[in-house]
Amino acid sequence: MPVIHVNMLKGKTTEQKKIMVESITEAVVKAINVEPEKVTIFINEFEKEEIGKGGRLYTEIK
Amino acid sequence: MPVIHVNMLKGKTTEQKKIMVESITEAVVKAINVEPEKVTIFINEFEKEEIGKGGRLYTEIK
Amino acid sequence: MPVIHVNMLKGKTTEQKKIMVESITEAVVKAINVEPEKVTIFINEFEKEEIGKGGRLYTEIK
Amino acid sequence: MPVIHVNMLKGKTTEQKKIMVESITEAVVKAINVEPEKVTIFINEFEKEEIGKGGRLYTEIK
Amino acid sequence: MPVIHVNMLKGKTTEQKKIMVESITEAVVKAINVEPEKVTIFINEFEKEEIGKGGRLYTEIK
Amino acid sequence: MPVIHVNMLKGKTTEQKKIMVESITEAVVKAINVEPEKVTIFINEFEKEEIGKGGRLYTEIK
Repeated sequence: MPVIHVNMLKGKTTEQKKIMVESITEAVVKAINVEPEKVTIFINEFEKEEIGKGGRLYTEIK
Repeated sequence: MPVIHVNMLKGKTTEQKKIMVESITEAVVKAINVEPEKVTIFINEFEKEEIGKGGRLYTEIK
Repeated sequence: MPVIHVNMLKGKTTEQKKIMVESITEAVVKAINVEPEKVTIFINEFEKEEIGKGGRLYTEIK
Repeated sequence: MPVIHVNMLKGKTTEQKKIMVESITEAVVKAINVEPEKVTIFINEFEKEEIGKGGRLYTEIK
Repeated sequence: MPVIHVNMLKGKTTEQKKIMVESITEAVVKAINVEPEKVTIFINEFEKEEIGKGGRLYTEIK
Repeated sequence: MPVIHVNMLKGKTTEQKKIMVESITEAVVKAINVEPEKVTIFINEFEKEEIGKGGRLYTEIK
C-alpha cells in the first residue's frame, strides 16, 4: 500500500512508463513516508475510441 | 470532473461507444449541472473470459 | 453488466443522484441495447481534499 | 452486487480464471450471505510494462 | 499482486469482512498459485443512495 | 487525462495529501509530457477494517 491506478491514452513508450513509475513512487514515498516496495502502480491504457471528453470520443477530438 | 469508468463486455461498435459517451455526458450535465467539457469517460472493455457472474466465466454462460 | 463507477465531488443532493442514475441508465440502454436491470452504477463521492487538479488540492482551488 | 475488480499480471490460463471466479464467488457468498448470481467479477490483466513495484516496472523485476 | 477491489453496500460487520478477506485470499491463492502475502484487498462500501440498479437508487429499491 | 486513483490507508494529513498531489502531478508531467492542468487525482482513503493483506484485515495486522 498504497495502490495507484493510472488511466491514460495508449501510446507512451516503455521508457516513459519506466520514468513515470519511478517518479510517481518517489513522489508518494516523499509525501506520505512509505517504503518504495510498498507502492504498487497499475497503468491502464486506453484506445482513443475508449475515452470520452465533453460528450465526444477522443477519435473525434484528437 | 466527474470521471466515469464504464466496465462492459467487448464487442460494441465505435458508433455505439460514440452514442454512449454523448448520452452519458448529457445525462450527467443535466443531473448535476456541470459543463460537458468537465466530464471524462473511460470505457473498459473485457473479453468473455475476463468476466464472472454467478461463479462462472461469461464464456460458460453466453 | 455494464458496471459504471462515477467519481465526483461530494455535495450533490439525493434528488440529483436519483436523476443522474436514471438518465445514465437510459443513456446506456439506448446506446448499447441492454436491459435497465443489467446496469449497475456506483457513485464514489470525494471531499475537496481528496481530489487534485493541476498539482493542487481542490481545497486550494474551489 | 457486490462487484469485484481483480487486477493482476497477464498470463493466467482460462482454467485458472474459471477456478478463481468460482472460488471468489463462493468466498463472498459464504462471508456476506448474498446469492451467487449477484456477484460480478471483472478480471483486469496487465502486461509487465504496465505494472510498477518499488519504483520499477515489472519488466525490470520479473 | 493481485490487487482486488470489492464494491458493495455498506452495513457488513467487521467479522463478515474478516471472513470475506480470508476466504477471497484463499480462493485466489488456490486458483492462481500466489502467496497470501501478495494479495491485497480494498473493500469499497457504499450508502444506498450511492448505488443505482435498473435506473433507480437503492434507496428506492431496498 | 491522465486520471489517477490513489488507494491508501486513512489518516494522512491535508498537508501530506497536498504534497502528494503536487509531486505526483510533477512526476507525471515530467514522464509523459502533459500539462499539469490535465492531471486529475482521486485519493481513496480506507479504514483498517476495509483493507486486507495476506488473508487478514489491517485491524489484525497494524
